Amino acid sequence: MVETQVNDTALVRPPDARSVGVVRREFAHFDHPLVLRSGQKLERFTLAYETYGTLNAERSNAILICHALSGDSHVAGYYTDDPAEPPGWWDDAIGSGKMFDTERYFVICSNVIGGCQGSTGPASPAPDGRPYATRFPVVTIADMVAAQRCLLDRLGIARLFGVVGGSMGGMQALQWAVDTPERVNAVLFIASTPRSSAQNIAFNEIGRQAIYADPHWNGGEYYDGPAPTAGLAVARMVGHITYMSEYSLEQKFGRKLQGAERLGYTLQTEFAVESYLKYQGEKFVRRFDANSYLYITRALDYFDSAEEFDSLEDALHEVSARFLVISFTSDWLYTAAQARELVDALPGRAVEHHHVTAHFGHDSFLVEVETMTQIVGGFLNRLQM
Amino acid sequence: MVETQVNDTALVRPPDARSVGVVRREFAHFDHPLVLRSGQKLERFTLAYETYGTLNAERSNAILICHALSGDSHVAGYYTDDPAEPPGWWDDAIGSGKMFDTERYFVICSNVIGGCQGSTGPASPAPDGRPYATRFPVVTIADMVAAQRCLLDRLGIARLFGVVGGSMGGMQALQWAVDTPERVNAVLFIASTPRSSAQNIAFNEIGRQAIYADPHWNGGEYYDGPAPTAGLAVARMVGHITYMSEYSLEQKFGRKLQGAERLGYTLQTEFAVESYLKYQGEKFVRRFDANSYLYITRALDYFDSAEEFDSLEDALHEVSARFLVISFTSDWLYTAAQARELVDALPGRAVEHHHVTAHFGHDSFLVEVETMTQIVGGFLNRLQM
Repeated sequence: MVETQVNDTALVRPPDARSVGVVRREFAHFDHPLVLRSGQKLERFTLAYETYGTLNAERSNAILICHALSGDSHVAGYYTDDPAEPPGWWDDAIGSGKMFDTERYFVICSNVIGGCQGSTGPASPAPDGRPYATRFPVVTIADMVAAQRCLLDRLGIARLFGVVGGSMGGMQALQWAVDTPERVNAVLFIASTPRSSAQNIAFNEIGRQAIYADPHWNGGEYYDGPAPTAGLAVARMVGHITYMSEYSLEQKFGRKLQGAERLGYTLQTEFAVESYLKYQGEKFVRRFDANSYLYITRALDYFDSAEEFDSLEDALHEVSARFLVISFTSDWLYTAAQARELVDALPGRAVEHHHVTAHFGHDSFLVEVETMTQIVGGFLNRLQM
Repeated sequence: MVETQVNDTALVRPPDARSVGVVRREFAHFDHPLVLRSGQKLERFTLAYETYGTLNAERSNAILICHALSGDSHVAGYYTDDPAEPPGWWDDAIGSGKMFDTERYFVICSNVIGGCQGSTGPASPAPDGRPYATRFPVVTIADMVAAQRCLLDRLGIARLFGVVGGSMGGMQALQWAVDTPERVNAVLFIASTPRSSAQNIAFNEIGRQAIYADPHWNGGEYYDGPAPTAGLAVARMVGHITYMSEYSLEQKFGRKLQGAERLGYTLQTEFAVESYLKYQGEKFVRRFDANSYLYITRALDYFDSAEEFDSLEDALHEVSARFLVISFTSDWLYTAAQARELVDALPGRAVEHHHVTAHFGHDSFLVEVETMTQIVGGFLNRLQM
């Protein structure tokens, strides 16, 4: 095990890093059932996905990116030529000369089952034609991974060069190695945990309760009327705080007022940090389905990679993949101790652990691009050797 | 400055500690205006308060306890003889032989202005007879203290032997010393901060947004109909998480299920930690007014004891009181760094700082009774000498 502190500013982004450019969302439809951990099944399902780079002749250079709670398949690039369009959620990481170099790797990302960006989820039509809503079965991280396996089969990829994820994505990456060790060459487990803690569950439950408290939620049956946007916005705000650090909030906002020189002595939004959080909430509800939020946070709560085993060591007994574990000093959502739990359960030769000094909390994995590029690039290079 | 780590189990509670027994809530009505920091005023106001022990002939043994966000004047004892009635919120601290020994001290606590347990607040009738609701003026920590000064005048107490508070109570205690240094002999500042941070404001804002999102809130005009209990419950749940530590949640709940042996694969409450949080929310809404929650969290946000000065040192320039500052290692709401900010701004001889190793997060100040008794008792004894 290697533990390294990387200087945030040590590396300059390669000057030749290039965007993947205009990309397209694809859909894979599956007419066979997906049997879930609960014993229930989805008779048929669809996964939305995107790919970047080229699959080599040996079909051996595929890297699967697994997204986090609020993510989707659009990791990198643009859907249009509109210069105002923001790129995919981890555009810094995927492209020619980037962390996951599309000159070398065939990069895949699919929207999770239960999601709301093209994959089958609670907003999708059930066999009776109406949206599933809360008739959608509870899905787990293992179910998300099982659906991804169907996609990989469809693409003719027997073994992944790497499976990668931050946050909930890291859980999926780990689950891949636990469930089908023979299909995984390397796991990149970033700002994540091998099991959700009581505090993790507690924050998720607050988000759900905020949604339930919105009368527009209406037991999940809102697809014909107004959506529970007020509740979902509060849920997002709660989540968002857990993605930042006390330090980063203080640096970014402190006690700054929004558009005023002095306190107004009102109940209105006055502090910049309030305004920022409200904006995050309002922005989120335009792109996310409240029922998906319920189901995906439930999958997070349920996640315990050792659940069906005597211990985490036991769960990892068959695993032959090499692991890269990255944690961040200021991440209080998925803490150093949680990453350490995984590291300690892996055989020493199989894992490289970087505990990175970074100020941006959980979001550091998206923000600390130079450091991540250095660590991930080095790990991938050593795998090739 | 003394910094000490106290062993949690070092001290056994004095065997002769006794409850204050049955107590009564008193009301002080003031027919003169309370001029607020905003420039607005309350034409008349009432403070609910309780006292324990006896004021000595010199009127020199009074200790004022200031309560936190969700507290009230009922610090200790019981209102009835009913053995099922829970005692006041800090019963462990006030009584014969306790931290604040009622054989020696005359202990006072009043519900803050803006509150909902007998003091004038948004639920109180405005001069026109209808509840103030959001017509209630925004109040600050300094306004709460100004109202307390009126009560102390009424009781004939020119100078406090000590002013004490945890959390928001600590802010009031500090504000007492800043505003009227000549009236304060000692400040006991516990698990608190000299100013709210961006993260503190962010959590408060989420609670407020949860209340606003509840249609029963209705712009604050709900006193004739159903109250926004769903929103207030979510607000309380958010707050409650910040009062505990990751460790204490993990120890208390971990991934334990509530009344089940195995995962149910439902959206229902399944984990013990969810059940606990929901219970905390439901219990809270029975005793607390949502508009008061809005106003008091606003007062928290506004709190910056150095706001009208060039620096915190400057704000404390006239202060002659002795300070006891207590912080807790696992308190992530009001952190060690925030306590340190106050300690560093005080002249060294005037402050005793204990940074206590404790696992219960912010709530440690209520939970770590033996340690607190030892520290507070020692401090008060040294003041007498």
